[in-house]
Amino acid sequence: MEQRTEISSLGEFGLIEHLTKNFEIYNVSTVETVGDDAAVIDHFGKQTVITTDLLIEGIHFDLMYTPLKHLGYKSVIVNLSDVYAMMAQPTQITVSIGVSNRFSVEALTEFYEGVYAACEKYKVDLIGGDTSASQKGFIISVTAIGEVAPDKYVKRNTAQKGDLICVSGDVGGAFLGLTLLERERKIYLENPNVQPDLEGEDYVIGRLLKPEARKDIVDFLEKNEILPTSMMDISDGISSEILHICKQSKKGCKIYEDKLPINESSRKAAFKFGLDPTVCALSGGEDYELIFTLKQEDYDKITLNEEISVIGYITEPEDGCKFLSKGGNEFDITAQGWKAF
Amino acid sequence: MEQRTEISSLGEFGLIEHLTKNFEIYNVSTVETVGDDAAVIDHFGKQTVITTDLLIEGIHFDLMYTPLKHLGYKSVIVNLSDVYAMMAQPTQITVSIGVSNRFSVEALTEFYEGVYAACEKYKVDLIGGDTSASQKGFIISVTAIGEVAPDKYVKRNTAQKGDLICVSGDVGGAFLGLTLLERERKIYLENPNVQPDLEGEDYVIGRLLKPEARKDIVDFLEKNEILPTSMMDISDGISSEILHICKQSKKGCKIYEDKLPINESSRKAAFKFGLDPTVCALSGGEDYELIFTLKQEDYDKITLNEEISVIGYITEPEDGCKFLSKGGNEFDITAQGWKAF
Repeated sequence: MEQRTEISSLGEFGLIEHLTKNFEIYNVSTVETVGDDAAVIDHFGKQTVITTDLLIEGIHFDLMYTPLKHLGYKSVIVNLSDVYAMMAQPTQITVSIGVSNRFSVEALTEFYEGVYAACEKYKVDLIGGDTSASQKGFIISVTAIGEVAPDKYVKRNTAQKGDLICVSGDVGGAFLGLTLLERERKIYLENPNVQPDLEGEDYVIGRLLKPEARKDIVDFLEKNEILPTSMMDISDGISSEILHICKQSKKGCKIYEDKLPINESSRKAAFKFGLDPTVCALSGGEDYELIFTLKQEDYDKITLNEEISVIGYITEPEDGCKFLSKGGNEFDITAQGWKAF
Repeated sequence: MEQRTEISSLGEFGLIEHLTKNFEIYNVSTVETVGDDAAVIDHFGKQTVITTDLLIEGIHFDLMYTPLKHLGYKSVIVNLSDVYAMMAQPTQITVSIGVSNRFSVEALTEFYEGVYAACEKYKVDLIGGDTSASQKGFIISVTAIGEVAPDKYVKRNTAQKGDLICVSGDVGGAFLGLTLLERERKIYLENPNVQPDLEGEDYVIGRLLKPEARKDIVDFLEKNEILPTSMMDISDGISSEILHICKQSKKGCKIYEDKLPINESSRKAAFKFGLDPTVCALSGGEDYELIFTLKQEDYDKITLNEEISVIGYITEPEDGCKFLSKGGNEFDITAQGWKAF
């Protein structure tokens, strides 16, 4: 039988010590970490970037199909993704959790194993956090800090007319992974004896449960001295994000259906569910890819990188935000938006 | 009738814009704030201090007797208090909230009015955050960033034998405020027609609902060139905090009952509830005063400040952590600890 240690048996400080004892320090700027009122970071001659995300059980994740280790990993990734989307390098994170007494120390240890794996892979330091009880469910709040050379960060409101719109990796997969797991959950709740049918769906499930942040893209752009004119990460879907860039930059855009990067596994999964892969690519969230704009003269430099697709270009604001289908029809781009309330 | 605007009518970005539109910027180090993937802070030649706290409805606050504006104010204060406890100056905060649909835009506006009031009073900048739905209750996560001259921050593990133990302001009041409001809540739930009996209790209620962070103490110490040998803020009670300082510094201590700073209103409230004011002062949390240790040679300098009380001194670890009562009896200091689970 699996061991179950009650959190109350360790106490808050025992728990913090237990959960953070194996963390290594990767950044020289990390001066002090867990164990005092606040952590200390040294930032001589660099600018600091800071971002924070709240993840709430039942809203952002379902523990029925989300392993805790994956959840810990993803909680870090979604924040690092925001730091990379500024063309900055993440250096430190804080992780706060609120947990009800249905969670054991073993469960939290599993969660922190995921946090630790992400810290190790991306070489960021866990420097603090808060540990609290919750009345119901699991609550996670992560803050990530990064650094960037003075004024080299990239915002959303600086896209220019004629700029190429680029997307990293492929999109729509995470949404299809969610669709699949939600379907299996419903089937299970109706009949617990039915075996889940997840065969051949590793790709879309992985896109949802174990996303990565695109450090490689930021590193590639830096190495090749390509400074995007605007950038953000794709958490709510391409449609929603490009509308942000256009609105904040006071520009329009044109996006081509046949240029959207969709993985073959995502396409198959979409057809299986009777969904349009294009709609999934445009409106599906949680892929944590980067969307950015480049000056046309940088086009040659990015052809080197197969992980970057050009999906359209920036236009004048009066042209609106348009989507050109394979069939040659033009549509207004609309965001699915924020339906949580 | 009061206006009620559904949060869904604004959408996430409309809501963020609505809640943050009136924020002023106080620090030159604040380069970019709300509206991108991450905020940007400039920290040339200073060290950065970072701290974070999670506040959860039903665990940390009860909205039955906590006005939302006070809650917003306190959410900021508890984090600033941690920054001051490092002898650093807070400069920026991020505020994330998770709210169920029982909250209206007006309710959130009230909460942010409190956040705003704290930012204005302490001259800190709100630079970001996250806004999310929650299945149940109100969840608040605040991260505060501060700055300090290189290596001038004060930790918990550096108290030395013979150092004086000092406390700012007075203690126990917030706990008595909580006791009072919990009693009134129970009476109300049993009989909603009974009028609350809060007369003469403004002081203890104010200590709970509208605490302040002791910027004045940090400023006084800096101005008079007094560098504490260790410091932390009092969120869990003097007993718990001095045990942290002693354990982490590998020292003992002696604290005197007759030196504990207890406000006259707190003393009266304690007697009214049949509680021992000393126990409230030692074990009552949430006062957000500072506890710190000083070299004996600095004693003359602090007598200038009536807001600082010397309550004891640091001893050798083998002497243990002792409390001397007015009657001359010596007790071991014990922490009430973390009873949330």
